Amino acid sequence: MHMSYKFADRVMGLKPSAIREILKFTSMPGYIPFAAGNPAPEAFPIEAVNEISAKLLNMHPVDALQYSITEGYAPLREHLKDYMKRKHNIDREFDNIIITSGAQQVMNLSTMALCNPGDTIICENPSFIGSLNAFRSFEINLAGVDVEADGMSIEVLENQIKSNQKARFIYTIPNFQNPSGVTMSLEKRKKLYDLAKQYGLLILEDNPYGDIRFSGENIPSIKSFDEDGIVIYAGSFSKVLAPGIRVGYCIAPAEIIAKLVVCKQTSDVHSNIWGQIICHEFMTNYDYEGHLSKNCKIYAKKANLMMDLIDKYLLPAGITYTRPEGGLFIWCKLPDGVDMLEFCNAAVEQKVAVVPGNAFTMKDTDPTQCFRVNFSTPTDEQLVQGMEILGEVANKLIK
Amino acid sequence: MHMSYKFADRVMGLKPSAIREILKFTSMPGYIPFAAGNPAPEAFPIEAVNEISAKLLNMHPVDALQYSITEGYAPLREHLKDYMKRKHNIDREFDNIIITSGAQQVMNLSTMALCNPGDTIICENPSFIGSLNAFRSFEINLAGVDVEADGMSIEVLENQIKSNQKARFIYTIPNFQNPSGVTMSLEKRKKLYDLAKQYGLLILEDNPYGDIRFSGENIPSIKSFDEDGIVIYAGSFSKVLAPGIRVGYCIAPAEIIAKLVVCKQTSDVHSNIWGQIICHEFMTNYDYEGHLSKNCKIYAKKANLMMDLIDKYLLPAGITYTRPEGGLFIWCKLPDGVDMLEFCNAAVEQKVAVVPGNAFTMKDTDPTQCFRVNFSTPTDEQLVQGMEILGEVANKLIK
Repeated sequence: MHMSYKFADRVMGLKPSAIREILKFTSMPGYIPFAAGNPAPEAFPIEAVNEISAKLLNMHPVDALQYSITEGYAPLREHLKDYMKRKHNIDREFDNIIITSGAQQVMNLSTMALCNPGDTIICENPSFIGSLNAFRSFEINLAGVDVEADGMSIEVLENQIKSNQKARFIYTIPNFQNPSGVTMSLEKRKKLYDLAKQYGLLILEDNPYGDIRFSGENIPSIKSFDEDGIVIYAGSFSKVLAPGIRVGYCIAPAEIIAKLVVCKQTSDVHSNIWGQIICHEFMTNYDYEGHLSKNCKIYAKKANLMMDLIDKYLLPAGITYTRPEGGLFIWCKLPDGVDMLEFCNAAVEQKVAVVPGNAFTMKDTDPTQCFRVNFSTPTDEQLVQGMEILGEVANKLIK
Repeated sequence: MHMSYKFADRVMGLKPSAIREILKFTSMPGYIPFAAGNPAPEAFPIEAVNEISAKLLNMHPVDALQYSITEGYAPLREHLKDYMKRKHNIDREFDNIIITSGAQQVMNLSTMALCNPGDTIICENPSFIGSLNAFRSFEINLAGVDVEADGMSIEVLENQIKSNQKARFIYTIPNFQNPSGVTMSLEKRKKLYDLAKQYGLLILEDNPYGDIRFSGENIPSIKSFDEDGIVIYAGSFSKVLAPGIRVGYCIAPAEIIAKLVVCKQTSDVHSNIWGQIICHEFMTNYDYEGHLSKNCKIYAKKANLMMDLIDKYLLPAGITYTRPEGGLFIWCKLPDGVDMLEFCNAAVEQKVAVVPGNAFTMKDTDPTQCFRVNFSTPTDEQLVQGMEILGEVANKLIK
C-alpha cells in the first residue's frame, strides 16, 4: 500500500502481552479459560452497581458526565485514605493519593515519573507480565529476584541491588503473587524495606489481591511500615468490585503523587468518573466488608476445587504446585525433562488454555518448567473438565 | 521528613497544565469560568444515558463489569468505522480503529509509538496545551507554525519541515482550532497533506470539535484524502456526548494501530467498558444526528451571545478576536503595549478566569498578546456578567 512506518525504539521490542493474546484466543467459544485472570462474575456486586448508577444518573447526572480533576473523585480519595488507615495502618502525613485507570496505570505512571531509559527495576522472577511490559515500554532493564516459598530471596535481592547501580525501585506483589501464588513473610517484608532504605531505593508495592485472602493470617503491608517515604502503594478495585470499570489508586509521598498527577494529565486527563463514584458509593453505603468476605468464600471454594483436581489429575504425573492463601492463580511446575511449551501447546490443542511460565520471566527465553492456571474465570464444570484434559495431556507427554 | 526524590528527565520540565490549575481555581464558588473548556451540561443526553445504563446493568451487567480487550468494545469499533465512512468519507482498507481513554490518550499513545526523545513534532502555534504537554512528556522538540485566518502558514510549515530533520509528524486541529478558533481551508488541508507526503511525515489530525459547527460549510477532513496511509485521525465523544466517560478513538493504518494497542495494554489495559457501551448504544439506538444538531444550536446561541458581548465591552477598548464557526473557544488579542499577563491576573482578581495565551505557545516564554475565553461552560448570566467585568478591567488597563 504505502510507506513503511518507523516506530519509536521503546516499542520495537514490545510484543503484545502473551496473556492478552491468549485471552482473545480463549474468549472463543469452546475453550476452557485457565489462562485468564478474570474475577468470577458471581463476585460482582451487580445489584449494588445497578442501584448506585440509577441513583447517580437520576439525581446528579452531570457529576458523572462532566470533566473532572486529574487527582480523582475527591470523596473517593478521602474515603480511601481513611479506610487504608483504619484497616491497613497506612497512615503517613507525608502521603497523598491519586485515582488511576486501574492499577496498571500506577505501574505506567510510576515508571514514567521515576525512571530514565537504561535504569533498572528489580522484580520478583517470575512476575506479572502486565507490569513487566509497562516497565519495558520505558526501556528499563529488568533485574529478577528468585521467588521462594516465603517471597523474594533476600540474598539474591541484595546481590541485584549491589550489581545494578541504576536501580530505581523494587517491584513486588507481596500477597498471593501473580503468577507464583506466593505470599511474602513479614520477616522478608521488613528485610526488603530495610535494604531499600539502606541503598536509597524506592519500593513499588502492588497489592491487587490483598483483599482476596481465603486462608492463613493477614500480613501487614510494606507500606504500613513506611516511616521514610520510600513506598509507592498500588491498589485496585478490579478484583474486589469489577475490572471493567478500570479504577485503581496509588498512595505515595505527596511529592511523588504530584508528579504522577502531571503524568496522568498528559496520558488521559482523568479516569472515568462514573466508575469512581460507583466505587465510593459501594464502599460507603453498602456492606463492603461483607462483600469482601463473600468473595473470599467464592474464591476459596474455587481454589480448593482446583487444588483437589490438581492433586487428582496432575500430581500423579509429577506436576507440583504452590498452594496459594488467596488471589486468583496457581503456579504449576512440570517435571524436569518435559518441554514446558510443548505441554502448553498440547493443552491449547485440547482446548484448555494455560499460560506458559516464560510469559512471566525477565526474558521470555529464560528457562522455566512452570505454567500458570487460574481458578476464578472457569465455572466449576470447566474446572473439572479442564483438569481431566490437562491430566490426559500430562500423561501423554510425561513418561 | 525523608529522602529527596530523583525524578525522570522527561518530567523535570513538565508543569501541571496551566488550564487544569486554573480549572481547579475556577471551580471555586464565585468565579466566572471563561477559562474552562467544559461542554455545556445542557448538551449532555442525560435521559438517554440513564436509559442505556439501566438497560445494560439490568440485562447484561457482566458485559459492563468484566475485563475486556485492549482494542475496545467491538460493536462500537465496527459502528464507528461504518459511521466515519458514511458521514466523513474516511474509508481505507489499510486502516483500523482503537478506542481510547479520551482523545488525549491518542496523543499520548501516538507519541509513545512513533517518537524517540529529541524527535520533533510540528504544531500549530498556538495549540492545545494538553497535546503539547503529552508531546513534551516524551522529550519532544516542538516546532511551531503560525496560525493564519485560514489555518497554518504553509510557508512556515515547509520551512519548519526543512529545518527539522527529526520531524516525525505534523499535529493539527483543523476545525475550530483550540485555542485560535480558526478552521483550516480545504486548499491548505491539501497542501499540508502533499507536503507531509513529499517529506515522508505523518499527520496527526485531532478533530474533537468537528461535529460542533454552527456556521459555515463542512470541510473534508485531511484523513478523507489519505490515499497514502499517512494520517492518524483522533476523534472524541467528550464534546458530543460527555467528557466524564473518557471515550475517544483513533483511526490509522492497521500497522500503527497495532502498536497503539501494545502501548495501551501497558498503559491502562483497556478503557472503561460502560462508557464505551453508552457511546455505541447512543449512536445506534437514538437520534444521534438530531442530538448533534440540537447541540450545535446550543453552542451557536452561546457563541453569538459571547461575541455580541465582546463587541460591546472589549472591542471599544481595542481588543480584537476571531469569529469561530464552531467549537468552544474565542481567541482574543490585546492591543500592543498592554501586558497580557497583567490583564489576565487583573481579570482573575475580579473573579473572571481567562487563559493567558502563553499557555498555548511552544514555550511559555514566547511573547503573545492573546488570551482564550470559553462560551460553553458559563451560563448566559455569567457570560453577561463576566464580559462586563472584563470590559472594566480592559478600560482600566488600556489607555
